Amino acid sequence: MTRLHDDPAQFTDDMLTGFLDVHADRVAGVRGGVVRATTTPRGKVAVVVGGGSGHYPAFCGVVGPGFADGAVVGNIFTSPSADDATSVARAAHSDAGVLLTTGNYAGDVMNFGLAVTQLRSEGIDAEYVAVTDDVASAPVGEEPRRRGIAGDFTVFKCASAAAEEGADLAEVVRVARAANDATRTLGVAFDGCTMPGASDPLFTVPVGQMGVGLGIHGEPGVSDEPLPTAADLARTLVDGVLAEEPADRTGRIAVILNGLGRTKYEELFVVWGSVARLLRERGYTIVEPEVGELVTSLDMAGCSLTVMWLDEELERLWTAPADTPAYRKGVAVTDRGERRSADDSATTETVDPSLLSDDDGRDAAARIARTLRAMAAMLADAEDELGRIDAVAGDGDHGRGMVKGSSAGARAADEAVEAGAGPSSTLAAAGSAWASQAGGTSGVLWGAMLTAIGAALGDTGRPDGTAIAQGVRDGYDALIALGGAAPGDKTMLDALGPFVDDLERGLADGSPWQEAWTHAAEVATTAAADTAQLRPRVGRARPLAERSVGTPDAGATSLAMCAQTVASELATHTTGGPR
Amino acid sequence: MTRLHDDPAQFTDDMLTGFLDVHADRVAGVRGGVVRATTTPRGKVAVVVGGGSGHYPAFCGVVGPGFADGAVVGNIFTSPSADDATSVARAAHSDAGVLLTTGNYAGDVMNFGLAVTQLRSEGIDAEYVAVTDDVASAPVGEEPRRRGIAGDFTVFKCASAAAEEGADLAEVVRVARAANDATRTLGVAFDGCTMPGASDPLFTVPVGQMGVGLGIHGEPGVSDEPLPTAADLARTLVDGVLAEEPADRTGRIAVILNGLGRTKYEELFVVWGSVARLLRERGYTIVEPEVGELVTSLDMAGCSLTVMWLDEELERLWTAPADTPAYRKGVAVTDRGERRSADDSATTETVDPSLLSDDDGRDAAARIARTLRAMAAMLADAEDELGRIDAVAGDGDHGRGMVKGSSAGARAADEAVEAGAGPSSTLAAAGSAWASQAGGTSGVLWGAMLTAIGAALGDTGRPDGTAIAQGVRDGYDALIALGGAAPGDKTMLDALGPFVDDLERGLADGSPWQEAWTHAAEVATTAAADTAQLRPRVGRARPLAERSVGTPDAGATSLAMCAQTVASELATHTTGGPR
Repeated sequence: MTRLHDDPAQFTDDMLTGFLDVHADRVAGVRGGVVRATTTPRGKVAVVVGGGSGHYPAFCGVVGPGFADGAVVGNIFTSPSADDATSVARAAHSDAGVLLTTGNYAGDVMNFGLAVTQLRSEGIDAEYVAVTDDVASAPVGEEPRRRGIAGDFTVFKCASAAAEEGADLAEVVRVARAANDATRTLGVAFDGCTMPGASDPLFTVPVGQMGVGLGIHGEPGVSDEPLPTAADLARTLVDGVLAEEPADRTGRIAVILNGLGRTKYEELFVVWGSVARLLRERGYTIVEPEVGELVTSLDMAGCSLTVMWLDEELERLWTAPADTPAYRKGVAVTDRGERRSADDSATTETVDPSLLSDDDGRDAAARIARTLRAMAAMLADAEDELGRIDAVAGDGDHGRGMVKGSSAGARAADEAVEAGAGPSSTLAAAGSAWASQAGGTSGVLWGAMLTAIGAALGDTGRPDGTAIAQGVRDGYDALIALGGAAPGDKTMLDALGPFVDDLERGLADGSPWQEAWTHAAEVATTAAADTAQLRPRVGRARPLAERSVGTPDAGATSLAMCAQTVASELATHTTGGPR
Repeated sequence: MTRLHDDPAQFTDDMLTGFLDVHADRVAGVRGGVVRATTTPRGKVAVVVGGGSGHYPAFCGVVGPGFADGAVVGNIFTSPSADDATSVARAAHSDAGVLLTTGNYAGDVMNFGLAVTQLRSEGIDAEYVAVTDDVASAPVGEEPRRRGIAGDFTVFKCASAAAEEGADLAEVVRVARAANDATRTLGVAFDGCTMPGASDPLFTVPVGQMGVGLGIHGEPGVSDEPLPTAADLARTLVDGVLAEEPADRTGRIAVILNGLGRTKYEELFVVWGSVARLLRERGYTIVEPEVGELVTSLDMAGCSLTVMWLDEELERLWTAPADTPAYRKGVAVTDRGERRSADDSATTETVDPSLLSDDDGRDAAARIARTLRAMAAMLADAEDELGRIDAVAGDGDHGRGMVKGSSAGARAADEAVEAGAGPSSTLAAAGSAWASQAGGTSGVLWGAMLTAIGAALGDTGRPDGTAIAQGVRDGYDALIALGGAAPGDKTMLDALGPFVDDLERGLADGSPWQEAWTHAAEVATTAAADTAQLRPRVGRARPLAERSVGTPDAGATSLAMCAQTVASELATHTTGGPR
């Protein structure tokens, strides 16, 4: 929701004040909106865009060389008045006329139409074009009734570039109409946005659903569907837009994958991967695509796909440079480097691991790989819980890191076993994969621990309890050396220390190692729970030390859970295991 | 929340695939992250930034000329592995060494530290600098323990610009440390973000509260406070950051007001207005500030303020050009216009309205102004309800538009009365202000209606029922001419038509006009409720016609409410009113 405002009734004015301040080098305020900080040169048609606000960078964010000469700024989601449109157009106009252009909404059409009448009465040559790109807002054959959404961007851009090239008003109008005729958009919404000062969103989409065909003002969609995967969403959007593919397509298209505010860049890039593939499968060449937030709707969750079918003229205008507060195109800095070659990747030599192992070793390695798979399965179930524990005073990434690490470790172990590796090579491969895929502190430490255990076991023979205990002790020492933490610092050491102490004690008392391990795993579980009383002393949890008291350490917790999983595996598969 | 993904475990890989595709002209993928599409020139230090992902445009979005040579890309909120950091650094390195730099997190420090060791063992000169700008994460005196948040951006930018200028590795390291020493950030959070594939956010902030001192990974803040106004938030942020003002300040600062993902541009501009004023009051000159999303945290709600105290060197590096996927600086297009003069505003001549009115007219105008104030107060209460009605099949802006229009109209009427205006001038002023401030369709129509009523009343004498009815009828006719709608189209006409018919009938039957008005207002209320059965035929509601059945028209509803308010005012203030 929109949370930051002073007097909600003054929100647009306050927003404009801040915008004009931060971009004072590029834009100037006039009554009703903004114009470029420089006057429109003689002979150049002025392009004035506009509509309600709440869509930044549309519309004031695209005022500048190569793009609009002025933007009329209405209240949030509300058409500006005819007076405002007239005022901005008057300030932007030089001597070659002015194109006013907005999305096709009743209020905008009326007010900008009145402004055209007023400007003409003052002797200013003025024209108006409404953008109608939203395929969901009216069927084929009723295009003039469609709303303008993210296609505003392609139409405004091309009309503005034509004006920058020196086209006269009739030409600029022709280009705007051609760009509009060639542009189609389909949008989806996952959740509504909230007007400044309002306590409830304008609308909501049921959880797990997607509204297809939303407008940029939070108008509800025309149908609700279950929330798809990114790949399925890409197909819905591509199919929806390409359903109106023109007969005379050139095969070259400008594309915008637009985020509405709360659907973030990372998600858009995931969707883009599929969108780009699907468009290319349909035979298209994608020209300078844009993936990001270009026409937003406050903090609405959703996105839209816009395609503009290019001819030579539209491609030239789409790719022309621009330099505005929110959108810049064209090279600003000369790059001194040379283009990289297509294949810059490195290769590494490997040794056949079966040359280092024997049958007993390969047998033990298979058991180790099976145990790692069980740990990965257990951690996948525990991911959310570990994330929540970690988030109390940390960054909440522990569950995800353990899942990534353990699944990569199990896969690598399987591959090593497949290749005939013994315990040491298998655990080294698992440790390296775990560290590499999990990342983070715990990834490095788990990688080091598995590698240390493997080194103690070797690649041949059936590992015995002494070697196993030695491996865990070596792992513990490696963790202290690498991580810089001490016992009592509220880390995984506080479970691993009691575990290895108890394991050694059990073996010294003559217990079979499986029994000793099971007992030690219970000690580790208790020790992990007891970390709730501790205050963290290293790592990023430090400033949040007080907050963490009462919650156990996530790393100690997951370590104890892994020790328990090993114990369960030992209980399930007792025959033929290591002595 | 993060909704769009395919396999959540592959989110980062899928994100990178899409990112590399859309920005293939600028960047190339290597194992562990991305590098510029061009090789690092001989003699240039490579700057490699990084950390977990989920922070776009940090970190892969700032790879390019003038900024980073490479970015190591970890999983969401998770440090990349030492292997990944080594791999990207190796690919970015030319022959002059490499600076690796990240925010100060245990996992990053460990993995990038291991990478430095590995790179040196391969004969590559490598250094590491961790950014520590977050004032909330450790007290003064313990700066090396602080986290790196949006200050990553100023430090990475300055170090990169120094490398671009040709500084050697020792110099680049010196600049990075100097930029870090000069940079302070304070952040706040309003709500948590959700990891891809997770069903619950990493953390939540209680509704109406603000977590002060959040990190960019969703770590909880160090204190919770009530949600402030934008102006109070600006003061909290400015005071917090300037508390660590250096003794040798030059008076020039670089400033970033950074949105974390869900706190949108419009809100940031509102906050910026106050931030800029406060910083200037403290004697600072703000150099090329940035207001937008530079270091995000998925869809987290919140923002942060970063200040870098500038000396000559840091100012030169901060303002140097850059050209990356997400951040460009430096002029890309030559502007052909001339700088506008400081005072470009127009003036209008006005006539003293008291010259047009008499005592009775001024008396009636005062009553009209009081009635408009009552309407504005009523509409302020009804704003949310009207917005919700409108959102069923429209854009939800009706409540806001009526509030803006009526409050502006009431203010303008008060000013007109103060200046001695009669009914016609008062209603013309109110109508003009209403249309201008409300914007949208209903703003124009209400403006026209008030003006038409005023024209029928004139500026002198006590208005009588006939004149009032004539004014409303003229207003109704103006609405049909302007709005292009007909009765039955589900617009305000469907309340106004029955109202004016009944008003005329009552007056013709000899009722006192106050009684006739009160009866007509009830008719209008019934008629407005009856619009629920209608399908809209014009305006943007068209594609949603079916959805609107069962809900009354918002414009008809608000019109009936206003008519009722006038009736209540007539009942409360009967003495001396118009006949």
